[in-house]
Amino acid sequence: MSETTVTRADGRATDQLREVKITRGWSQNAEGSALIEFGNTRVLCTASFTEGVPRWLKGQGTGWVTAEYAMLPRATGTRSSRESVKGKIGGRTHEISRLIGRSLRAIIDTKALGENTIVLDCDVLQADGGTRTAAITGAYVALAEAIEWAKNEKILPQNAKALTGSVSAISVGIIDGVPMLDLPYVEDVRAETDMNVVVTGDGKFVEVQGTAEGAPFDRDELNSLLDLALVGTKELTRIQNETLES
Amino acid sequence: MSETTVTRADGRATDQLREVKITRGWSQNAEGSALIEFGNTRVLCTASFTEGVPRWLKGQGTGWVTAEYAMLPRATGTRSSRESVKGKIGGRTHEISRLIGRSLRAIIDTKALGENTIVLDCDVLQADGGTRTAAITGAYVALAEAIEWAKNEKILPQNAKALTGSVSAISVGIIDGVPMLDLPYVEDVRAETDMNVVVTGDGKFVEVQGTAEGAPFDRDELNSLLDLALVGTKELTRIQNETLES
Amino acid sequence: MSETTVTRADGRATDQLREVKITRGWSQNAEGSALIEFGNTRVLCTASFTEGVPRWLKGQGTGWVTAEYAMLPRATGTRSSRESVKGKIGGRTHEISRLIGRSLRAIIDTKALGENTIVLDCDVLQADGGTRTAAITGAYVALAEAIEWAKNEKILPQNAKALTGSVSAISVGIIDGVPMLDLPYVEDVRAETDMNVVVTGDGKFVEVQGTAEGAPFDRDELNSLLDLALVGTKELTRIQNETLES
Amino acid sequence: MSETTVTRADGRATDQLREVKITRGWSQNAEGSALIEFGNTRVLCTASFTEGVPRWLKGQGTGWVTAEYAMLPRATGTRSSRESVKGKIGGRTHEISRLIGRSLRAIIDTKALGENTIVLDCDVLQADGGTRTAAITGAYVALAEAIEWAKNEKILPQNAKALTGSVSAISVGIIDGVPMLDLPYVEDVRAETDMNVVVTGDGKFVEVQGTAEGAPFDRDELNSLLDLALVGTKELTRIQNETLES
Amino acid sequence: MSETTVTRADGRATDQLREVKITRGWSQNAEGSALIEFGNTRVLCTASFTEGVPRWLKGQGTGWVTAEYAMLPRATGTRSSRESVKGKIGGRTHEISRLIGRSLRAIIDTKALGENTIVLDCDVLQADGGTRTAAITGAYVALAEAIEWAKNEKILPQNAKALTGSVSAISVGIIDGVPMLDLPYVEDVRAETDMNVVVTGDGKFVEVQGTAEGAPFDRDELNSLLDLALVGTKELTRIQNETLES
Amino acid sequence: MSETTVTRADGRATDQLREVKITRGWSQNAEGSALIEFGNTRVLCTASFTEGVPRWLKGQGTGWVTAEYAMLPRATGTRSSRESVKGKIGGRTHEISRLIGRSLRAIIDTKALGENTIVLDCDVLQADGGTRTAAITGAYVALAEAIEWAKNEKILPQNAKALTGSVSAISVGIIDGVPMLDLPYVEDVRAETDMNVVVTGDGKFVEVQGTAEGAPFDRDELNSLLDLALVGTKELTRIQNETLES
Repeated sequence: MSETTVTRADGRATDQLREVKITRGWSQNAEGSALIEFGNTRVLCTASFTEGVPRWLKGQGTGWVTAEYAMLPRATGTRSSRESVKGKIGGRTHEISRLIGRSLRAIIDTKALGENTIVLDCDVLQADGGTRTAAITGAYVALAEAIEWAKNEKILPQNAKALTGSVSAISVGIIDGVPMLDLPYVEDVRAETDMNVVVTGDGKFVEVQGTAEGAPFDRDELNSLLDLALVGTKELTRIQNETLES
Repeated sequence: MSETTVTRADGRATDQLREVKITRGWSQNAEGSALIEFGNTRVLCTASFTEGVPRWLKGQGTGWVTAEYAMLPRATGTRSSRESVKGKIGGRTHEISRLIGRSLRAIIDTKALGENTIVLDCDVLQADGGTRTAAITGAYVALAEAIEWAKNEKILPQNAKALTGSVSAISVGIIDGVPMLDLPYVEDVRAETDMNVVVTGDGKFVEVQGTAEGAPFDRDELNSLLDLALVGTKELTRIQNETLES
Repeated sequence: MSETTVTRADGRATDQLREVKITRGWSQNAEGSALIEFGNTRVLCTASFTEGVPRWLKGQGTGWVTAEYAMLPRATGTRSSRESVKGKIGGRTHEISRLIGRSLRAIIDTKALGENTIVLDCDVLQADGGTRTAAITGAYVALAEAIEWAKNEKILPQNAKALTGSVSAISVGIIDGVPMLDLPYVEDVRAETDMNVVVTGDGKFVEVQGTAEGAPFDRDELNSLLDLALVGTKELTRIQNETLES
Repeated sequence: MSETTVTRADGRATDQLREVKITRGWSQNAEGSALIEFGNTRVLCTASFTEGVPRWLKGQGTGWVTAEYAMLPRATGTRSSRESVKGKIGGRTHEISRLIGRSLRAIIDTKALGENTIVLDCDVLQADGGTRTAAITGAYVALAEAIEWAKNEKILPQNAKALTGSVSAISVGIIDGVPMLDLPYVEDVRAETDMNVVVTGDGKFVEVQGTAEGAPFDRDELNSLLDLALVGTKELTRIQNETLES
Repeated sequence: MSETTVTRADGRATDQLREVKITRGWSQNAEGSALIEFGNTRVLCTASFTEGVPRWLKGQGTGWVTAEYAMLPRATGTRSSRESVKGKIGGRTHEISRLIGRSLRAIIDTKALGENTIVLDCDVLQADGGTRTAAITGAYVALAEAIEWAKNEKILPQNAKALTGSVSAISVGIIDGVPMLDLPYVEDVRAETDMNVVVTGDGKFVEVQGTAEGAPFDRDELNSLLDLALVGTKELTRIQNETLES
Repeated sequence: MSETTVTRADGRATDQLREVKITRGWSQNAEGSALIEFGNTRVLCTASFTEGVPRWLKGQGTGWVTAEYAMLPRATGTRSSRESVKGKIGGRTHEISRLIGRSLRAIIDTKALGENTIVLDCDVLQADGGTRTAAITGAYVALAEAIEWAKNEKILPQNAKALTGSVSAISVGIIDGVPMLDLPYVEDVRAETDMNVVVTGDGKFVEVQGTAEGAPFDRDELNSLLDLALVGTKELTRIQNETLES
C-alpha cells in the first residue's frame, strides 16, 4: 500500500486530518463550551455543571458525567424529522450519546468531582461525517472548561484532580482497499470498514468500534486502521491542549 | 413619560433595538439559511425546500410553508431537558412554532409556490429574550434564499411571485410603567405587559400578541407599544433587505 | 362602512353576541362548575380545588391556578382523533390551555389563595366557533364558585381577596371587510383577520391576540376590532355577575 | 334472602333501576347522539358515520363498528389526570372501550352496513357508578340514530337490516350478601361481587363479566345476579324503544 | 347433545384438557417461576418478591400483588410488532394483565403478606389459544413458590397465611353448537361463544367472562359452559398441587 | 502471564467457553428458531420470513434482514420495568438490536434474498452475561433455518446463495489483569476492559467493540483479547454447524 498515490476528494493525504478548529467559550450561558469543526462538520458542545447527582448515586460521595448527542434536523443534506416531534429517540442517537458519555467518564475521577454532575450536550449544527468523534473531542474541551469554572467558583478545590487525562476521537476506514483517516460523508458512505477510535492523551484506547460495512476485515487491516487512528488522535490532543492554553 | 430619562441595563434608548446581525448562508446543506443575532440571542434558521406537499394538500396546485422552533438544552442560563428525551413537545414550543409558520405564510402566495413545501427550522443556539421574534425575522431571510435557490434550480419559474412581501417581528413591553422595544431576558422577566408584534415590510400587522403578565393594560398603553413595535420592525426590514442584497 | 346594512347568517347585528347561557353547578362532583353556551358552542368548565401546590411553588405561601382545554372527538362537524389515543397533545390544545390559564391568573391574587391549587378543566362538548373565549368566560364562573366553596369550607378565610376582579373573552373578526363580534364557525373560517380579546370586568386588556388569516391588517381595523370586543366583554361581564348572584 | 327488608342508600328496592333518562340528538354535529343518565351518572354518546372502512377490512364488503370510552378529568369526586396529558391510555379505559365495541357489534350485521364505519364515542361527563353499562345502553340509541340518518341520506338502502336487534347493559352486585341491581358508586365500592351483564332486546346474553372483589362467589349467587340483570335490561330495552320512537 | 360423537381436531373429548405440563423453578433468577404448557401454548411465569409497596399503599401494613402479561412478537403464527417499539401497550394486553392480577389477589391475604410486593410476569413464548388461562394457572405456582421463598428467607413468618387458597383458569366455548373445554387457536377462532372462567381450588368463581363472538347465548348454554369449566379447573387444581408437592 | 494458574469462579480455563447448547426449532410457529444457552444465559431466537421489503427498499430487487433484542423483565437478578410499560426503548436495547442486525447482514447477500424480509427476534429469557453474543450466535441458526424453509417452500430457488457464510460472537475481557473468554455476569461487572467480537466462520472480523470500563487499554491487551475471541468463535462455529447438520 503506497499512500502517496491515493487521491482523496479534498486532496488530503490518507493519514491527514481535515482542518480542525475549536472555538472555546462559544456559548455564554454554559459553564463550559466549545464549537468544534472537523472540516464542514460543526458540533456545539456545552458542559452544564450542577451540584448534586442523580438519585441512584446519592450519598456515595461521587459525581457523574453524562452526555446527550443530537442533530439539528437540517444538519444533513436532506432534512430529517425532529426526534422531539417523533416522540422518541432513535437508536443511532442513543448509541452515540452513550459512547460520548463513556468516553468522557474514562478520564474523570468521579470521586474527585464530588457529588456534582456535568452534562455534556453535543448538538450537530452541520454534518459532514465524523460527528461523533468531533463531539467527543469538543466535549473534552467543554468539560475541562467546566471543571476550571468550578474551581474558580470554589465548588471544587483548586487541587482537585477531577480530570485524570484528556481524550479525543477520530474515525478511520478502508475505502477501495486503502485505510484512510478522518472520513467526510462522501468517503464514509463508500467505506468497506468503518472504525471509531477513542484514545487518551497518552495514547491508550478507551473505545475501539470497528464495523464491516461491506466485506469482513482481517487482522492486518485492523492494525493499519489502529495505526492511523493513533496518528489522528495525537494531533487532536495537541490542538485540544493548545486551545485550552489559549 | 419622557423616554430619554430611562436607563436600560445595556444603555439603550427605549425605542432602540439591540445590535442585530444576520449571517446569510450559515449552513451549507440547506436551501436557505441565516444565523440571526438580536444581541446575545442567536437563532439558526434553515429553510428546507422539498418538492411535493403534505397528503391533505395534494392535487390542489398549492404549496406549503411550515415552521419548527426549538431550543438547545443549554441555550438558557440553566439547562432544560430535551423534548426528544421527554418524549413530547411542550406547549411553549408548539405555540411558537405555530406563530412562526403563520407569520411566514402571511407573505407567501402558496399558489405561486406550486406543489412544493418549505420547512423553516429555527433552532435557538443561545437565548437572551426575543427568540421568537428573532426566529421570524431570520426565517424570512432563509425563506427568501430558498425561493431564490428554487428559481436558480428552475424548480420555480424566474417570474414566480411566491413572496408577496417581507415580514419581521419584535417584542415590546412595559417595564416600571415605561414602554420599551426589544426586551432582553433581564427586562422580559420584569415586564408588566409583554407583546410580540409581527409586521410586514409595508407596515401592516400580521400578528399582535399582547399579554398582561402583571396588571392588565389599557388602550393607551397598547397604542404606545404598537408605536414602538413599528419603529423596530421598520429597522429590521431595512436590515433584512440589506442582507438579502449583499 | 355601515354596519347596519350587513346581514349575518343568523340575523345578528355586527356588534351583537350570540345567545349566551351559563348554567352554574352543572357538575355535582366539582368544587365549581359551569356549562356555558355561546349559541351552539357548549363548554363544560369545572374547577377542582386541592390543597397544596406543585413542587416548584412549595413553601412560598402562594397558590396556583392552571387550565386544561380539550374537545370531545365529535364536538365538531367531522370526528377528530382523541389526543389520548394519539398519545400526544396537539399545538392548538396546548396554546388554548395556556391562554385560559394566563387569563384566569390575571384576576387571581395567588398570595390570597394560600398554598392551594385550582385546576380549570374546559371541555368542549359542542363546537361552533369561539370555544376558547367561551371557555375563559365560563371558567371564571367555575373559579368564583370554587373560591366561594373554599370559604364555606373554611379552607380560605371569609375575607380572603383571592379574586381581584372578573374576566371574560370574546372573538372578533373582519369578514368581507366588515368587523364583526362573536364569530360562529361559518364566519370564523371566512374571516380575513381573527382576534381573541380577554378583558377584565373593569374594561382593561388581559390578552389581545390578533392574527391575519388572509391579508395583513392596519391600525384602523385593529381599533375597530378592539371597540367591538369591549362591547362584547361588557355584556359578558353583566351575564357572569347575574349568574353568580343567582 | 328477603329483598324487601334491605334498605339502600337511595331508598330503592334491590331489583329497581335508578332513574334512567335518555336525551336523543343532544349533539347537533353527530349523525347520532344520546345523553344518557343512570341517576347521577351522565354519559354523552355520539355516533360518527363515515364512508369507508379501516385498511384491514377494505374490499370485503363489510362495515365496522367500534367504540371509544373516556372520562372527563373531573367526572369523579377527585380529579384524575387526562390520559392525553399522560400520553397513554390506561388499562381500564382500554378494557371498557373494547367491551362497548364488542357489545354493539353483537347486534350489527356488518354485511348489511356496507363498507361504512360507525365510531361510538362515550364520554362520561359525570360518574356515579355504572358508567360502562350506561355507555352501552346510550350508544345503542346513538347507533340506531346514525343508521336511520344513513338511510335518510340514502347511503344505506331503506330496507337494510344493519341492526339485528337492540342491546343494553346493567351492573349487578352482592353487598352484605344481598344481590342488588344497578349500583351507584357508594354501593359499587362495597360490593363483594360485581357483575356487568350485556343483554339483547330479546333477553339473550352478549357479555357476562363477573368479578369477585372480595370473597369468591358460588353458582347460586351467580344465578341470582343474572336474574336481577335480566330484570334491569328488560326495563332498559323498554326505555330505549320509547326513546327511539319519540 | 351427545359429546362422544363430536370429533375435535386433536382427538380430545369435549370435556378433556390438552396435555398440561408445569415446570417449577424454570428461571433461576426469580423468587418463584413456572413454565406452563397447555398443549402448544407455553407461558413463562415468574414471581418477583420485593420488600416495600407502591406509594399509595405505604403505611397500611398490607402487601400488593400485581401482574403483567405480554407476548413475544413471534409467539404467534405471524409476527406482531413489539409493544415497546410501538411505544404503547395495546388494549388486549392491558385487559389480560388486569385479569391475572385480580385473579391472584383473590387468593392472597394482603395483610398476611406484610408490606411486600409480588409482581407476576407472564410472558407467552408460544401461543396456541388459552394463553390467559395458562398464565393464571402458572402464575399461581410461581406465586406459591415466591411465598415459600419468603418464608425460607424469614421475610415472612413460617405460619403466615398469605395464600388463602389456590386458583386456576380455563377457557370454554361453543363451537358448532357444542360446548367444549380448553380451546386451542383453531377452535377459538370458530367459537360462537367464548368464556374464560377463573375458579378457586375449592370450586368457587373468581371471574366469569363470557362473550358472544357470534350469536348471543342463552341461560342453558351459559350453564353448560360453567359445568365444563369446573371440570377443567378441578383437574388443573390437582396438577398444581402435584407440582407444588414435587 | 500464565493462564493456567488463574482460577475462575466456575473452574473454567481462561480460554474456555461456558457450556454452549443450541436447540433448533424450539418455536413451532416461526420459520426458523433456536434456543441458545451460554451457561445460564438463555436466549430465544426466532426468524420471521415475510415476502416484501420495507417501503424505502421497494423495487430494488434486494431483501432485508433486521433484528430486535429484548429482555424479559425478570431475566435478571432484580426485575426491571418493561420497555413497553415505560413507553420507550432504552439506549442499551437499541444498541444491541442494531449490532445483531449489522452482524447478520454481514453474511447475507441481500440480492440473493430477493424482495423478502427476515426479522430476527432475540428475547433473553435468562441473563448471565454475554446475552448479545449468544443472541448473534443463535440468530445465525434461526436465520439459516428460515432460508432453508424458504427454499423448501419454493419462495427462494434451491441454489440461491443468500447466506455468504456463518457468523458467531463472543465476549472477552480483562479481569485483574488477565484476559478471559466468555464472561458470565459475575466476571463482567469486574472487567476492566470488555470486548464483544463478531467473527465470520472463516475467521474474519465483522465487529470489534472494545470498551475500557476502568483503565484504558494498550495495544498488547487488545491483541490478547482478539486472540481469545478467535478461539471462542472458532468453537462456536463448530457447534453451529453441528446443530444445523443435525
